[in-house]
Amino acid sequence: MLVTALNRIQTPAAVVDRARMQRNIERMQLRMNDLGVKFRPHVKTAKSIEVARAQRAAGSRGVTVSTLAEAEYFFADGVTDILYAVGISPSKLPRALDLIRRGCALKIITDNRESAQAIAKFGREAATRFEVLIEIDTDGHRSGVQPEQQELLRVAHALHDGGMRLAGVLTHAGSSYGCDSPEQLVSMAEQERAGCVLAAERLRAAGLPCAEVSVGSTPTALSAERLEGVTEVRAGVYVFFDLVMCNVGVCTADDIALSVLTTVTGHQSEKGWAIVDAGWMAMSRDHGTQSQKKDYGYGQVCSADGTVIPGYVMSSANQEHGVLAYQPQMDPDIARRFPIDTQLRILPNHACATAAQFSEYCVIDEDGCLATWERLRGW
Amino acid sequence: MLVTALNRIQTPAAVVDRARMQRNIERMQLRMNDLGVKFRPHVKTAKSIEVARAQRAAGSRGVTVSTLAEAEYFFADGVTDILYAVGISPSKLPRALDLIRRGCALKIITDNRESAQAIAKFGREAATRFEVLIEIDTDGHRSGVQPEQQELLRVAHALHDGGMRLAGVLTHAGSSYGCDSPEQLVSMAEQERAGCVLAAERLRAAGLPCAEVSVGSTPTALSAERLEGVTEVRAGVYVFFDLVMCNVGVCTADDIALSVLTTVTGHQSEKGWAIVDAGWMAMSRDHGTQSQKKDYGYGQVCSADGTVIPGYVMSSANQEHGVLAYQPQMDPDIARRFPIDTQLRILPNHACATAAQFSEYCVIDEDGCLATWERLRGW
Repeated sequence: MLVTALNRIQTPAAVVDRARMQRNIERMQLRMNDLGVKFRPHVKTAKSIEVARAQRAAGSRGVTVSTLAEAEYFFADGVTDILYAVGISPSKLPRALDLIRRGCALKIITDNRESAQAIAKFGREAATRFEVLIEIDTDGHRSGVQPEQQELLRVAHALHDGGMRLAGVLTHAGSSYGCDSPEQLVSMAEQERAGCVLAAERLRAAGLPCAEVSVGSTPTALSAERLEGVTEVRAGVYVFFDLVMCNVGVCTADDIALSVLTTVTGHQSEKGWAIVDAGWMAMSRDHGTQSQKKDYGYGQVCSADGTVIPGYVMSSANQEHGVLAYQPQMDPDIARRFPIDTQLRILPNHACATAAQFSEYCVIDEDGCLATWERLRGW
Repeated sequence: MLVTALNRIQTPAAVVDRARMQRNIERMQLRMNDLGVKFRPHVKTAKSIEVARAQRAAGSRGVTVSTLAEAEYFFADGVTDILYAVGISPSKLPRALDLIRRGCALKIITDNRESAQAIAKFGREAATRFEVLIEIDTDGHRSGVQPEQQELLRVAHALHDGGMRLAGVLTHAGSSYGCDSPEQLVSMAEQERAGCVLAAERLRAAGLPCAEVSVGSTPTALSAERLEGVTEVRAGVYVFFDLVMCNVGVCTADDIALSVLTTVTGHQSEKGWAIVDAGWMAMSRDHGTQSQKKDYGYGQVCSADGTVIPGYVMSSANQEHGVLAYQPQMDPDIARRFPIDTQLRILPNHACATAAQFSEYCVIDEDGCLATWERLRGW
């Protein structure tokens, strides 16, 4: 029934398995409830109103966004508690102000004095007290001020003394994507927690307010053994999961809720290749598993009903062509296994990147019934 | 004036330098005129009505597309001569038929008997004579039947005897992207030409029609010394060029017409990093230069006016964060060189992939005046 329904879909298409998504949402929310923290999902993975509603129904509180376009999109759906978790450039402040003036409880972040001073100046001139979190660097992978640095207090004072609301501290242990054992994951989660809590304690010891201690990434959220001192956790990719997360060890292929539906268009039998109509335009150029313990090329091949076909991956891709092959040796019978016009599904390396290639999701449930969910793009 | 105008643009944004684009269009068209062949641009790079109009004004004839959505989009703008240059799956034939019935002179391609038979059967049942080209594999990089194979004649007979219009042969030497010397490029162009002409001659010797001999890729189109036997050339990325094409040797950085405008949001001075608001969501995940003679990471840094700043590249990227760094050694003064809120432009590795991340282009000319050009996405 499902496969018959998919036959009416033009390929390539982004398919969401609703039951798997729901299971992923509940798994994370239950963990957060057990750990006694608020959960604020990062909606940058799905960028979908319906996905965010399912997260809210399960108990999440507010959303995390990666662009102001997302903030505007989710605010228009009635979400008011929004954290824009990318260091804001002063040139984006007028757009943030507009959201706040329309009733959005938008929180912004920064990690440096220049921006903090610009926020305070702009806020005072607009008679608006921006809620600002300071971004903390707990793993050296990207932006943020380190918890021990003197700069932390300087940024905090620039905001607080400048009349803004110093709302707390925030960190994201993106290095957790490089872990591949439970021990590493537990250790990274503790490093993320401890670093962010230390920053909060330093602010409080200096007499500064710091209500929120916000941490998170999918691997650390699913691995943390304790979250003392943390008030909220953020995570995004868990909602769909992907092959990178399989390699990290926080899900299995059967948890992956996003796949790309594709159709076989040709073969190069002597090379063991089947050609499909999903290339990198559909899968994205993400090779995230290349540096991990198992390299899936551009993705894992599944039958149209979503069952993994072990050993078959998308080994290379052009813009609108994907090459499927068996690994490590070649399959001389691939043309018989995957005849012309066969529909297949490809599990992605990185759900955030693959989802971003599409404007909508084709949503399937156990009955094979279909719905279409819109997806936001742009900035 | 230009830089002042860009200051009003929300970043990240895809910027097109109109003068460079026009120069690239004229360079290619003049070459094709000199070589005495029709030029059919591949519109998959820009997916823009305005870009295709500029190509047409310079003398191009018809368009090449990579999706049926592009065919529908350009047909709606009055383009009737359209070549869909990806092997068609039988399930897409109803959509192709709809275009033909509405007056589009759509040409489709295939490289195998099963599809050829399905095309002929569907065409006869719909009382429509599909125009079909056979895809030829001249470099082993992807799909196509090899010119010497017996299969070529079988595919041709399935179409011709099945009542379809065997319109010709087509090849794309995608391996040319791996070349990096003039000698390799000339040799690859000749290999592409000779293989496709051989396929045409074999069809004609068997009494089959073969009016069109269509070849092309940007590197081979710009390197071919002779095109005897070829009737038309296709190329796409030349319209914008990119860093991969610089490494191949068919353009310079000053020819690159597409860049991503971005804003500095932070620094990690002790690592020599500047953080900008263009990550892989803006640049794409394409690392095309990684395997070439010069690796630009995620792109080459330029000032807001488009001048290359030698040595500075986007060395890594997250979804909405790009990390800029000097290479090979680190620049401890990067925070002073690129202060908070500085606008920069990043030249892309692969214009097709980077452009695909955006819904519109911000078009600039010498006067700094701005226009917005829509861009198609989806299938």
